[in-house]
Amino acid sequence: MGGVTGIRTDERASERRARVGLTWLAEPGDAVLGREIERVGPVGVLERISAQDPDLPGRRNYAVRLPRADIDACLEAVDSCGGRVVIPGDGEWPTQLDDLGPARPIALFVRGHDLRLAAVRSVAVVGARAATAYGVTVAADLAAALADAGWAVVSGGAYGVDAAAHRGALSASGPTVAVLACGLDVVYPRGHASLLEQVATAGTLISELPPGMHPTRSRFLQRNRMIAALTRGTVVVEAAMRSGALNTAGHAAELGRPVLGVPGPVTSAASAGVHRLFRETGAQVVVDAAQVIEALGLIGELAPEPSVPRRVTDGLDPVALRVFDALPARRPLPLSEVAVAAGLDPVLVGGALSRLGVLGLVISGDRGWQLAHR
Amino acid sequence: MGGVTGIRTDERASERRARVGLTWLAEPGDAVLGREIERVGPVGVLERISAQDPDLPGRRNYAVRLPRADIDACLEAVDSCGGRVVIPGDGEWPTQLDDLGPARPIALFVRGHDLRLAAVRSVAVVGARAATAYGVTVAADLAAALADAGWAVVSGGAYGVDAAAHRGALSASGPTVAVLACGLDVVYPRGHASLLEQVATAGTLISELPPGMHPTRSRFLQRNRMIAALTRGTVVVEAAMRSGALNTAGHAAELGRPVLGVPGPVTSAASAGVHRLFRETGAQVVVDAAQVIEALGLIGELAPEPSVPRRVTDGLDPVALRVFDALPARRPLPLSEVAVAAGLDPVLVGGALSRLGVLGLVISGDRGWQLAHR
Repeated sequence: MGGVTGIRTDERASERRARVGLTWLAEPGDAVLGREIERVGPVGVLERISAQDPDLPGRRNYAVRLPRADIDACLEAVDSCGGRVVIPGDGEWPTQLDDLGPARPIALFVRGHDLRLAAVRSVAVVGARAATAYGVTVAADLAAALADAGWAVVSGGAYGVDAAAHRGALSASGPTVAVLACGLDVVYPRGHASLLEQVATAGTLISELPPGMHPTRSRFLQRNRMIAALTRGTVVVEAAMRSGALNTAGHAAELGRPVLGVPGPVTSAASAGVHRLFRETGAQVVVDAAQVIEALGLIGELAPEPSVPRRVTDGLDPVALRVFDALPARRPLPLSEVAVAAGLDPVLVGGALSRLGVLGLVISGDRGWQLAHR
Repeated sequence: MGGVTGIRTDERASERRARVGLTWLAEPGDAVLGREIERVGPVGVLERISAQDPDLPGRRNYAVRLPRADIDACLEAVDSCGGRVVIPGDGEWPTQLDDLGPARPIALFVRGHDLRLAAVRSVAVVGARAATAYGVTVAADLAAALADAGWAVVSGGAYGVDAAAHRGALSASGPTVAVLACGLDVVYPRGHASLLEQVATAGTLISELPPGMHPTRSRFLQRNRMIAALTRGTVVVEAAMRSGALNTAGHAAELGRPVLGVPGPVTSAASAGVHRLFRETGAQVVVDAAQVIEALGLIGELAPEPSVPRRVTDGLDPVALRVFDALPARRPLPLSEVAVAAGLDPVLVGGALSRLGVLGLVISGDRGWQLAHR
C-alpha cells in the first residue's frame, strides 16, 4: 500500500512538474497541445517536445522556449511570491474549467484563499477599462451586494469596472478572484499593486501563466475565457463597442453560461457595447444584484418584485375610481353634478361616494361632496 | 341615383350626429356600448338611451348626461376651434383603430392635417412626465430622426418625454400627432398651449372626447390605448415604476404591436419602468431611430451595423498577430528573441515579421525588429 501510494505520489509530482514546464512552452488556450496532453499525458508531451517528435503538431513552436525552461526555477518563483501550483485532479482544481475541453488551463498558479471554494458560487463582473463614474459606481455597488449575498466576484484586475468590482467585493468582506493575464509576480497594471495585493490576501489571485510572463493581447483574450469558465455567468457593466468585456461575454455564451448586462445611457459610448449585447446576442437586462442572482442562482432564488409606490386609489372598484376622478380638485359638487361628471347613474354614484367616505377619501358638506384634504 | 345617394348621405349625417351625441354620454373605451353600436348602429343606440330601453345595459349611466347633450352645440364647438368630426367609414378614419374592436372610439375630433395619412406610418414615443434631461434629450433626438425618416411621431402632449417627442418631430418638420385626454378646446396641460397649437398647425391634434370635456385618470388611460392602437409600435423613453407610459406599452402588447424601450442608467428612477419592461414583458432594447425603424418597419428596413472602430491589427493572421503582440513597446529585439517571446518557430516568426513589415507595422534595424512609430 505504502509503495503504491509512493508511486502514485511520484507520478503526481512528475505530472505537476511537467504541467508547469508546459505552461512555459505553450501559450494559454492551446487546444492542439491540450488534446495531446489528454492523449499521452503531460509527461509524455513534454518528452516528445524535448525529443522534437515529428508526429507532434507545432513541435517547433514549443521548442523555441525549451532552452530557457527551468521548472525548478519556476517553482521557486511561484513559492517566493507566495503562490502554489494547482493542476487538474487537485482538490483545489475548479472542475468547471474542464468545460473548456482541451483548451482548459494546463496548470494554475494561485495565491490567496482556496480557489475551488471561492469559484463554486461565483459570478464574473467585467467591463470597460475606460469606465465612467456611472460604471464604476454601478460595478462597485453590484459587487458589494453580490458579495453580501455570498457570491464570489471574479474579474480581471484591470482599471475601470474590473477594479471597481474587486473593490466592491472587498468592501463587503466578500470573496473575490482576480484572473491575471501575466505571471503572479508581474504587477499589471502597475497602478494596481495595492489592489492586487489586497485581492491576494482577502481573496484569490490566479493565472495560467508562469511567473515572469507579461501580458499580451492574446493572453488577455485567453484570460477572459478563464473568467467566463470559472463563473456561473458574466455580468457586463459598461463596454465600448470593442471592449474586451464583450469577448468575455462571448466565451460565457459559448460555454452556455448566462450573459447579463447592466444598461446605461444610450448617449454614453461606454454603454454602447452592452446595448449591442442585448440586441445581438439576447443578453439579459439586469439592474441589481438580486436580478443577477435570480438569473444565475439555484431554482428558487427569485429576485423580489420591484417595489412599486402605492396610491390611495389602489384597490378601488371601477365605479368608485370613476367617481373619485370626477370630483374637482377643490370645490364641492352636489351628487347630481358628480353623476354628470362621471357619466354614471346617481344611484351608483351615491353608493360609491359612501364607500369613498368610509375610506376617508371624500367628505360631504352643505354644498355637496369634495375630495378630503390629505 | 340622386335620391339613393341623398338617402345614404342623410344616413351618414344621422350616424355622424348620433356618434357625436354618444361621445357626450359615454366614457371612452366603453366596449359594452361599442357592442350595442355594432349591433344596432349608433342611431339606434342613441334612441334606446333616450327611451331608456330596459334591454340596454348601463342605460341609467348613459342617461345621466342626456339632459345636457346638445349635438348642435357640440358640432358648433368643434367648428369654432377649427376641428372636424371623423367617424368609421370616413376616408380620414385610421382603420388600425378598428383593432380595438368594440372599444374603438365612437368618433374622433380632429384638428390639423389628415389623420389617416399621418398615422399610416407612425410610431408612439411616450414616457415620463417627470423626465430627466437625459430623457428629454433622447426623446427629442429620437423623434427628430424618426421624422427625418418619414415616420409620424404620436404622443400624448404631456410634459416631459411627450413634449420632447412632439418638439423633436416638429423641429425636423415631420408629422406629429398629439392624442388628448380632453376636448380639443381644452388646453391641458396649461403650459402646453403654444406646443399644442403648433401640433395642430404642423401636425394633427385628436381626441375621442367632445369639446368641453376635461381629463380624468381613466380618460388618460383610454387615451393611451388610442396612442398604442394608432401606431405600428410604442417606444418608451424613461418611465418610472408606475408611469402611464407603461400602460401605453401594455395596450400596444395586447394589440400585438411591438414594445420598444430606450435603456437608461440603472441609478435613475426615471428609467426603472423601462428596465422593468425589458425584464417582465420582453420589450426590445433600442438605442436609436434606425433600430426603432428596423423593429417596426417593412421587411428590408434594417438598421445599419453599429460602427465599430478599426484597429491596425484587424485582419492579421493569427501568427502575425501573435508576433506583433510579442514585440516590446520601444526597444528592438533580435528575431530569435521575438520567437521566444511569441513562443513560435523562428521560421514562422521570420515570415510574419516580413508580412508585418510590408504593412508598415514593424521595422527592422541593426539591433533587430521593433514596432513602427505610428
